[in-house]
Amino acid sequence: MTPAGGFPRAPIGRADRPTLAVVGATGAAGTVLLGLLSERADVWGEIRLVASERSAGRKLAVRGEEVEVLALGEEVFDGVDVAMFDVPAEVAARWAPVAAARGAVVVDNSGAFRTDPDVPLVVPEVNAHAARNRPRGIVAGPGCATLTMIVALGALHAEWGLEELVVSTYQAVSESGRRGVEALRGQLAAVAGTELGVHPGDVRRAVGDTGPYAAPIALNVVPFSGTPAEDGWTTEELAVREETRRVLGLPGLRATATCVRVPVVTTHSVSVHARFESEVSVGKAHEILANAPGVVVCDDPAAGEFPTPADAVGTDPVWAGRVRRSPDDPRALELFVCGDNLRKGAALNMAQIGELVAAERAED
Amino acid sequence: MTPAGGFPRAPIGRADRPTLAVVGATGAAGTVLLGLLSERADVWGEIRLVASERSAGRKLAVRGEEVEVLALGEEVFDGVDVAMFDVPAEVAARWAPVAAARGAVVVDNSGAFRTDPDVPLVVPEVNAHAARNRPRGIVAGPGCATLTMIVALGALHAEWGLEELVVSTYQAVSESGRRGVEALRGQLAAVAGTELGVHPGDVRRAVGDTGPYAAPIALNVVPFSGTPAEDGWTTEELAVREETRRVLGLPGLRATATCVRVPVVTTHSVSVHARFESEVSVGKAHEILANAPGVVVCDDPAAGEFPTPADAVGTDPVWAGRVRRSPDDPRALELFVCGDNLRKGAALNMAQIGELVAAERAED
Repeated sequence: MTPAGGFPRAPIGRADRPTLAVVGATGAAGTVLLGLLSERADVWGEIRLVASERSAGRKLAVRGEEVEVLALGEEVFDGVDVAMFDVPAEVAARWAPVAAARGAVVVDNSGAFRTDPDVPLVVPEVNAHAARNRPRGIVAGPGCATLTMIVALGALHAEWGLEELVVSTYQAVSESGRRGVEALRGQLAAVAGTELGVHPGDVRRAVGDTGPYAAPIALNVVPFSGTPAEDGWTTEELAVREETRRVLGLPGLRATATCVRVPVVTTHSVSVHARFESEVSVGKAHEILANAPGVVVCDDPAAGEFPTPADAVGTDPVWAGRVRRSPDDPRALELFVCGDNLRKGAALNMAQIGELVAAERAED
Repeated sequence: MTPAGGFPRAPIGRADRPTLAVVGATGAAGTVLLGLLSERADVWGEIRLVASERSAGRKLAVRGEEVEVLALGEEVFDGVDVAMFDVPAEVAARWAPVAAARGAVVVDNSGAFRTDPDVPLVVPEVNAHAARNRPRGIVAGPGCATLTMIVALGALHAEWGLEELVVSTYQAVSESGRRGVEALRGQLAAVAGTELGVHPGDVRRAVGDTGPYAAPIALNVVPFSGTPAEDGWTTEELAVREETRRVLGLPGLRATATCVRVPVVTTHSVSVHARFESEVSVGKAHEILANAPGVVVCDDPAAGEFPTPADAVGTDPVWAGRVRRSPDDPRALELFVCGDNLRKGAALNMAQIGELVAAERAED
């Protein structure tokens, strides 16, 4: 309800605003989330930081204040309106229902609820409306591979109707948390200043322990992300298909993904081949993407302008470029999209969903 | 002709064998070629090494002997039967016809003749027969992106009939010669041991001059390979389409490629989505690939077995794995292929074509 007379609502104190809990506040995406909460329009009252017992008592900065981290337990959700979870799936599976039972709307970034028909899968730029229908009190966001491309793809779909999708990814190591980043940095230290990379296995021998990956990640690419699933697919590849179908509301969409890890610290890239119901054009695609919230168009290759992780990292939007129409199929478009996997690919999407829920409360 | 009576031909002296000229002997692929000529069954008589004026007089080892490099000029082709060219396209365009006019069969690895209808485009495992019809006395090989996938793809096409192709590449820096390798190694030295890769532009600032690429190649991927062509495509992306069509004899094939540079020294990878005329199966694909000359199957992801550049580099075959059938389309297959861009992607393919031509002579 708008105030009587249509006057703008007067600024309200934080005491009147919803209480937020950040669960997994000390993790990679949690750290980025605290930064985002400090930068974005402040819609929150109390912000409660929650982590494992091990991290309890640490103090973290959010909105310029030091806040003490609480150990995860039932009581931390008392009085919480929104709880953003960035924890492993098994932790989310156990604790999200606990938080919801105490009255919080849970925004979960893990894979625990992404395929649950009673949990909406939400990307605010694409299907914000879906967040309102949450029978379990839980809203999930897709995984970072899907999130890298879905904002740009959703805008194109809204115009032309997506029919088929083939994607190959170039995924950064910070998706694997600190272990991934440490593996890449340690391996780079082992190969920098050497002549390695030209004989079979020379990089493998130099780096020794390959950490979270089944092959070296320095001077290499690893075509395997997620865990083994049926028929040679990985969980992550199947998730890109399922999540895209859910977010776009296209349960029969033909979609395949090949998920590949590359030696980039943060920011995923996705090479997208998309076939639509209608004829496409590059000019119109540029116009659609330029007008799409959360998308930056970077597409003048002759001038050296195309999206790369090194430029997109640390920024909120996804960067889209290399837009081309198939010479053989006027309904097929190729594009290349980069997005920070810790921002739009995780923390930012959570923050946006949380703000949607907070806005509902303000409407009441 | 086989010798009368069917007795095996007696070993012949090198004097009876064809004379080979290697033009561009001091380059990256030329160096690999000299190694291959030393390793492979020796079909050559004299091997003449040719390079630019600047390199003339240097001595290089081939077949265990030191051979002096000659400066490129008309007379170096006198008495040459086969001339393998690994030089820039403009050098090949000028000198290949000169060599052919002097009676040599030219095997060219540049882009100068790949679209010439009077020059066959040959990958011996796929279309060896095409090498015999060479009106200009020149045989070309495809570029290294195409060569990485075409041997595996050609075998699958022979069984099922290729109908549509969507590929995304992960291309190594040695395709750009020493400048590419030096750029990657120099940039790695600048970023190793740092915390870079998490703020916009931090890698770009640290590496400074990006060398042959329009963006940093350390801790980054660069979705642009080749030079700008029409409608947003790069020359290399369009070449993958044209070369695949020519080698497979499918002038109407629907094909798109996105060519991306990655921080790998040597060995390209290609993520392939291929749709066929017939239904496919993963089991049959494994069987076809395992029986295909020049292909190694490496496909047990649950056991950490999939192709990576670090394992395939320095080896002759292409490595194929991650074979999956689309859950939505029984005629579509995904696979991931790695191939050493200086071996099968350049020098090995030249050596194989040269051997085909030498074998014709032995038949006469």
